[in-house]
Amino acid sequence: MDVIKVSANSRTAAVAGAIAGVIREQKHAEVQAIGAGAVNQAIKALVLAKGYLEGDGIAIVCVPEFVDVNIDDKVRTAIKLIIEPK
Amino acid sequence: MDVIKVSANSRTAAVAGAIAGVIREQKHAEVQAIGAGAVNQAIKALVLAKGYLEGDGIAIVCVPEFVDVNIDDKVRTAIKLIIEPK
Repeated sequence: MDVIKVSANSRTAAVAGAIAGVIREQKHAEVQAIGAGAVNQAIKALVLAKGYLEGDGIAIVCVPEFVDVNIDDKVRTAIKLIIEPK
Repeated sequence: MDVIKVSANSRTAAVAGAIAGVIREQKHAEVQAIGAGAVNQAIKALVLAKGYLEGDGIAIVCVPEFVDVNIDDKVRTAIKLIIEPK
């Protein structure tokens, strides 16, 4: 499954649309963000996605976790949000 | 019920301890953060709290929402994380 990667410059509505689409199709979505700006965009997108999915009668919840990711041979700690129907 | 307010300078371990304590006692916690730095600290604290509560056999999930808050007579949009046992 593809992880939805979010940066500080990601458009929240676009990320929200991606989350909603993946939840509708797979009942499970993962969003990854590195850094405060990216985490903030990811959470805002999640609020929007929740609204989109309420129209389909789908309530979602999220569980955050830390993941180590390799970027340019450096290990950085990312936040991964696991999103699933309630 | 008291809302746990998080700033960009909050210590994640302290916030995590507060979340875990409120969940143990009330089965429901609310965390409020304004701005990217604060949201990032809140999510990191939530990951830590999840670990603390796993030791008690409690799995938690979160649902984020926007809330308008008044600060110095200005309305700002905060993120509120609603945290509950799964």
